[in-house]
Amino acid sequence: MLVVAGTHGNERNAPWLLQHWRRHPPSLAAAGLSLELVLGNPAAYARNQRYLERDLNRCFQPAVLADLRVGGPELEQARRLLAQHGPRGGRPCTVVFDLHSTTSAMGNSLVLYGRRPADLALAAALQARLGLPIYLHEADDSQTGFLVERWPCGLVIEVGPVPQGVIQAPICRQTQLGLEAALAVLAEARLGRLRLPRQLVIHRHLGSLDLPRGEDGTPLACLHPQRQHRDWHPMLPGDPLFLDPAGRTLCYEPPAALAAAPAAAVVPVFVNEAAYGEKGIALSLTRREELDLQPSWGEALLALAAPLAPAGPL
Amino acid sequence: MLVVAGTHGNERNAPWLLQHWRRHPPSLAAAGLSLELVLGNPAAYARNQRYLERDLNRCFQPAVLADLRVGGPELEQARRLLAQHGPRGGRPCTVVFDLHSTTSAMGNSLVLYGRRPADLALAAALQARLGLPIYLHEADDSQTGFLVERWPCGLVIEVGPVPQGVIQAPICRQTQLGLEAALAVLAEARLGRLRLPRQLVIHRHLGSLDLPRGEDGTPLACLHPQRQHRDWHPMLPGDPLFLDPAGRTLCYEPPAALAAAPAAAVVPVFVNEAAYGEKGIALSLTRREELDLQPSWGEALLALAAPLAPAGPL
Repeated sequence: MLVVAGTHGNERNAPWLLQHWRRHPPSLAAAGLSLELVLGNPAAYARNQRYLERDLNRCFQPAVLADLRVGGPELEQARRLLAQHGPRGGRPCTVVFDLHSTTSAMGNSLVLYGRRPADLALAAALQARLGLPIYLHEADDSQTGFLVERWPCGLVIEVGPVPQGVIQAPICRQTQLGLEAALAVLAEARLGRLRLPRQLVIHRHLGSLDLPRGEDGTPLACLHPQRQHRDWHPMLPGDPLFLDPAGRTLCYEPPAALAAAPAAAVVPVFVNEAAYGEKGIALSLTRREELDLQPSWGEALLALAAPLAPAGPL
Repeated sequence: MLVVAGTHGNERNAPWLLQHWRRHPPSLAAAGLSLELVLGNPAAYARNQRYLERDLNRCFQPAVLADLRVGGPELEQARRLLAQHGPRGGRPCTVVFDLHSTTSAMGNSLVLYGRRPADLALAAALQARLGLPIYLHEADDSQTGFLVERWPCGLVIEVGPVPQGVIQAPICRQTQLGLEAALAVLAEARLGRLRLPRQLVIHRHLGSLDLPRGEDGTPLACLHPQRQHRDWHPMLPGDPLFLDPAGRTLCYEPPAALAAAPAAAVVPVFVNEAAYGEKGIALSLTRREELDLQPSWGEALLALAAPLAPAGPL
């Protein structure tokens, strides 16, 4: 089991927990699992910056990782993490939890990348236990190379709102709660006691919206205050979305890509996340969907959990 | 009149307003005053960082500015700002407003550096108009070299809470409201119509507290959640202040420097400001005091305001 904190160096809450867990291992209820606790981007953490040269959590494209002509501190760190704790690393791990925080009001939430069966089973069990909302990120060529994708099973625990560079006790508590629940689920799977719900509610990624911009790239409006801190709340065509400096409201119009069901509600996530401005993302749009659990999902998770058993008797 | 936004490159709200004011001058009610609108640290703004090498808003010590052997992007920018808009610059300004935002819940507030008569008169008139709380920073050798100190009159408008790198419409609105009120006060002074209140309420800086730290500098506790977002709220000895990772509350004990009146309430400001972690400041302590307005204060402001008159008839 791999736990990564500080993949982004200015998200300080999980690294603060990590320091504590290392000093006082009993303070993390690891459910008997063997854990590797890793600071994701130590160089960026030391400078309290998200990254030095490129976003570490976009560096995990196999083709880029394999191309040793492409370097830089983050790519080297990605390769180092895989060499140490990747599924074929020196101290191999099968499951990874990547602990993030956000300036958006995401609450305590999970992010899945694609529909890998083991991820879906794990997320379903976690949702049944804690009620966390799940953002299913898929089919977006503009955002790829996420860390958890390079392990057989893994997800992001995303907690907010909290400013970059700030530690807040409730954010830490939610992060710890999410991780401990995930570890408890895996321990149950290892013991053959995993109970899965019949359904899973996900919010499927549809795409992202940027701020309206002028020809030179200057934003011509900011987020409407009625949208701020309203992650997970449905938005309908005509709802206030942006506000220009003259005080004019710009309303949500479904983008062309959503023309198939333009009148249906979308659910914004990562609303006004500080780090996404440079990516041209003011918010992402999702749709709420219920997925029926498939037997193969639980089987995939059980198959991964089995080798996690420690040497001792159960 | 000089208006500076983005002295810290990751405080994005005032620069966003600045862009708008430049494109649409009527959108700032300048009360007939001639304004210079300046982006404080363009290089840091371009990288969405507080600063590149050193905090621009600690670079304005006269001895350091005068010592041309000391360089770097921020010191050079400080010298450039003074050469352009300092009281003896190419386009000289007499009064400066430096627009900041903070992750602390400071609301819409003013920061004064020392007790210059014109600053006190301006702040008093602003407080009478809008009710803003005032943080009077003085007598702290560990924090010096603030921008506004190099102009004959000037203050900081500080608005929060907002994460670094995030633009929020209410923060922009408060910033604009504060600046427009300040300009209206100066316009009244120029016309000889300045009305000052009889008293001014300030919160006088007493000192700052760091997080409890281990021998290697690692924080051993974070801010107590009951203190988060409680800027301007009194704190008494025994009140919860920090929380350690094991869940133990550490209570406020007056530092030795406050031994003269240890039982009196202190008023925290800049509570858990993201950028102050590196300065070893978890919060600053103040005491609320009422100051009687002195006739000399208003006279000092009037003397400065008079030359602001434009060439046209009044």
